[in-house]
Amino acid sequence: MATVRLWSDKDAAADPAVASVFEDIRATRKSDFINNFWRGLANDPALLKRTWDGLKAVMATEGALDPLVREMIYIAVSTANGCSYCIHSHTAAAKARGMTGAQHAELLAVIGLAGQTNHLVTAMQIPVDPEFEV
Amino acid sequence: MATVRLWSDKDAAADPAVASVFEDIRATRKSDFINNFWRGLANDPALLKRTWDGLKAVMATEGALDPLVREMIYIAVSTANGCSYCIHSHTAAAKARGMTGAQHAELLAVIGLAGQTNHLVTAMQIPVDPEFEV
Amino acid sequence: MATVRLWSDKDAAADPAVASVFEDIRATRKSDFINNFWRGLANDPALLKRTWDGLKAVMATEGALDPLVREMIYIAVSTANGCSYCIHSHTAAAKARGMTGAQHAELLAVIGLAGQTNHLVTAMQIPVDPEFEV
Amino acid sequence: MATVRLWSDKDAAADPAVASVFEDIRATRKSDFINNFWRGLANDPALLKRTWDGLKAVMATEGALDPLVREMIYIAVSTANGCSYCIHSHTAAAKARGMTGAQHAELLAVIGLAGQTNHLVTAMQIPVDPEFEV
Amino acid sequence: MATVRLWSDKDAAADPAVASVFEDIRATRKSDFINNFWRGLANDPALLKRTWDGLKAVMATEGALDPLVREMIYIAVSTANGCSYCIHSHTAAAKARGMTGAQHAELLAVIGLAGQTNHLVTAMQIPVDPEFEV
Amino acid sequence: MATVRLWSDKDAAADPAVASVFEDIRATRKSDFINNFWRGLANDPALLKRTWDGLKAVMATEGALDPLVREMIYIAVSTANGCSYCIHSHTAAAKARGMTGAQHAELLAVIGLAGQTNHLVTAMQIPVDPEFEV
Repeated sequence: MATVRLWSDKDAAADPAVASVFEDIRATRKSDFINNFWRGLANDPALLKRTWDGLKAVMATEGALDPLVREMIYIAVSTANGCSYCIHSHTAAAKARGMTGAQHAELLAVIGLAGQTNHLVTAMQIPVDPEFEV
Repeated sequence: MATVRLWSDKDAAADPAVASVFEDIRATRKSDFINNFWRGLANDPALLKRTWDGLKAVMATEGALDPLVREMIYIAVSTANGCSYCIHSHTAAAKARGMTGAQHAELLAVIGLAGQTNHLVTAMQIPVDPEFEV
Repeated sequence: MATVRLWSDKDAAADPAVASVFEDIRATRKSDFINNFWRGLANDPALLKRTWDGLKAVMATEGALDPLVREMIYIAVSTANGCSYCIHSHTAAAKARGMTGAQHAELLAVIGLAGQTNHLVTAMQIPVDPEFEV
Repeated sequence: MATVRLWSDKDAAADPAVASVFEDIRATRKSDFINNFWRGLANDPALLKRTWDGLKAVMATEGALDPLVREMIYIAVSTANGCSYCIHSHTAAAKARGMTGAQHAELLAVIGLAGQTNHLVTAMQIPVDPEFEV
Repeated sequence: MATVRLWSDKDAAADPAVASVFEDIRATRKSDFINNFWRGLANDPALLKRTWDGLKAVMATEGALDPLVREMIYIAVSTANGCSYCIHSHTAAAKARGMTGAQHAELLAVIGLAGQTNHLVTAMQIPVDPEFEV
Repeated sequence: MATVRLWSDKDAAADPAVASVFEDIRATRKSDFINNFWRGLANDPALLKRTWDGLKAVMATEGALDPLVREMIYIAVSTANGCSYCIHSHTAAAKARGMTGAQHAELLAVIGLAGQTNHLVTAMQIPVDPEFEV
C-alpha cells in the first residue's frame, strides 16, 4: 500500500492543476493510461507538474541518445537503487520502445558486471589512476 | 590508499598466472596501460582471471548493444552505487569510445532524473500497476 | 515472510527479558500495540533491549529537535536505504505526531530533490569547494 | 577531479543561458559565491536551469517546513546515499541557517539509528504490520 | 512478477546450453530443486553459465573461509543492498549449512551495528586515520 | 575534512563524560590509540557512550561467531554501503585479528559475487521461491 492517496480520474478532474498535467500526460503518450506514480504525486500539484515537466524534457525529446538507450540507463540506475516499481515501469517502457530479448539480456549482463566490480573496487579502495583524470 | 597491495609489472612478471592475464589485457586493449583495479585483483590470480574473462565477455564482444551504450550503463550503475573509481574509469572509457559532450550531458540528465523519481516512488511506496506486469 | 520467528505475546510472556522490554514499549507508547520489528528482535533479548533503549534515547526524549522532525529525518534515511517497512512505520508515526499533508508533500519534494542532486554530483565527481570545509 | 569541466565565471559570462542562471543564483542567495555543483552543471545549460529552478522551488520558498528542517532532511538523504560533496554543502547550508551543535548532534543520532534499524529490518525481512497500512 | 520469463524444466530441456547448466546445478547441490534465479538467467545461456561457474568457484569449493561464513558474508552484502530475494535464499542456505539461532542473532547484530556506524561516519565525514593506511 | 570537530586528548580530558569513554576504549583495546570516529562522536557524549557500549557488546565479547568473522561481516556491510573510512578501519582490525591474505581474497570474492547477483536478481525482479519461506 502507498503512504499517500492515489488519485482517481474523478479526484483529478476536480483539481484543475492536476487535471491539466494528467491531460498532458495522456496527450504526450497518446494513451489513456496514467500509472500510479503520477496518481501519488497528484497530492502535490506543483511537484507533479515539475516532475512531469522534468521527465518530458529528459525522456521524451529528440536528443543525442536514442530514447531506448535512455530507458535502459533508467533501468540501470533503478536497479542499483533497488526501486522495484521503477524497474517494472521502465522495463515496460523499454519493451514498448522495441527493446529485444537480446538487448535486455546484455543490459542485465552489464548491470550485473558493474555491480560486481563496483563492490570489488570499493572493498579494495582502489585509488584512481592519474590516466583517468583528464 | 588501497586495502590490498597493487602489483607492479615486476610483481606480475614473477607470477605466471597474473602475467598471463596482464598480457591478455594489453593484447585485447592494444595498450600497455594496466589500471589499478587489475593490479589490486592480482592478489588473487583466480579472481583476477574470472573477473577479466567476465569483463571481456560482457564489454568487449560484438553484441546487441553498442559498446558505448554499455559503458554508459556501467556509469549509471556505478553512480547509483557511489563508486568513484568506477565512474572515473568508465567515463574515460566512454570518452575513448567517442562519447560526445551532448551524450554525456544527456546521460547525466537521465541519471539525475532516475535518482529523483526512484526516491519519490520509494518514499510514497507506489504499488506496481498491473499494466506493467506482463 | 520474515527470516526469523516473530514472537507472539504468549512467546514473550515466557521469557522475562523479552517480556520486560515489551512492557516498557507499551508503557512508553501508552498503547498495547507492539509492531513486528520488536517481535523479530525478540529472538535476541540483548539486541532487543539495546535497540529499544537506543530508540527511546534518540526518538522519545526532549531534545533540540521536534519529535516530528526526527520522524521525518527517519523517513528520509529509510527512503534512501529502500527500507519499505521503515518507511511505512515511520510515516505512520509521523502522521500520529501531527504531520500534515502539506508537510508530507514538502518532505517528499526534498527527498526527491536530494536524490536527484546526489546522483548528479556523484556522476560528475564534483570536488568539495574549500568554502564548505570550515 | 571532476568528470566534467567546471565553468569559471569567464566561461559563464560567454554563454547567456549559463550567465543568466549564475546571476539568479547570486541574486537569490545574496552572495557572489557559486559552488562547484553549478559550475559542473553549466555544461548543459538546460539541465542547469531545470535543476536550479527545482532547487529554488523546494528549498528557497516559504512552506510548511522550516528551511533548516529541509536542510537536515537533505543531509539525511545525502548521508544514506554516501554523497560526500552533498553532505559538506548542505551541512554548511544548515549551519548558515542557524543549526546549533545540539541540533546537529541529534540529527546525527537519528541518522545513525535509522541506519541501524533499516539494516535490522531488512536482514529480518519484517512484514509490514496491517496497522501501518491506512 | 519477474521482468523476464522464468524457464520451466520443460523449457530448459529444449535448450542444450541451459539444460547442461541445470544438470550441473542439480549434480553439484545433490538436489532436484532449481531456484528461480537460475530460471530467470536461463534467458541468456552464456550469462547463466558464467554466473553459475562464478558462484561455484566462490561458494562451493574448499577454501580459507568456512562455507557458512561465506553465506553470512553474502547475507550481509545482500542486506546492505536491500535484495530481498538474496536475503531469503542465502539465509535458507546458511541454515542448511548449520547456522544456529545464536549465530544468526550475532550476524544480525553486526549488520545492524555496521549500518549505524557507516551512517554516523559518513554524516560526520571522518577522515581516515593514518594508522589504518599501511 | 570532517563536518564536526575531532576532539583532541586535551579536549577530551576537559569533559568527564568523554574522558571516561576514551579511558574505557583504551583499557578495552589495550592500546593508547583512539581513532577519529570516536573523536567525532565526542561532540555528543551520550551518543559516544551509547555507540561505544553497543560496539563493545557486539564486537568485543565472547559469542557464537569468531571475532574475525564479525570483522569480515562488518567489512561486507561497509563495502555495500560505500563507507570508505569503515572499510579501512575494519580491514585494519581484521588484519590485527589475524586475517590472512587468502581469507581476505575470499572475502573480496564473496562480496563481489554478492554484488553481481544482487543486481541481477533486482533487475529481473525474481520472486522468492516458496521453498525459501520456512
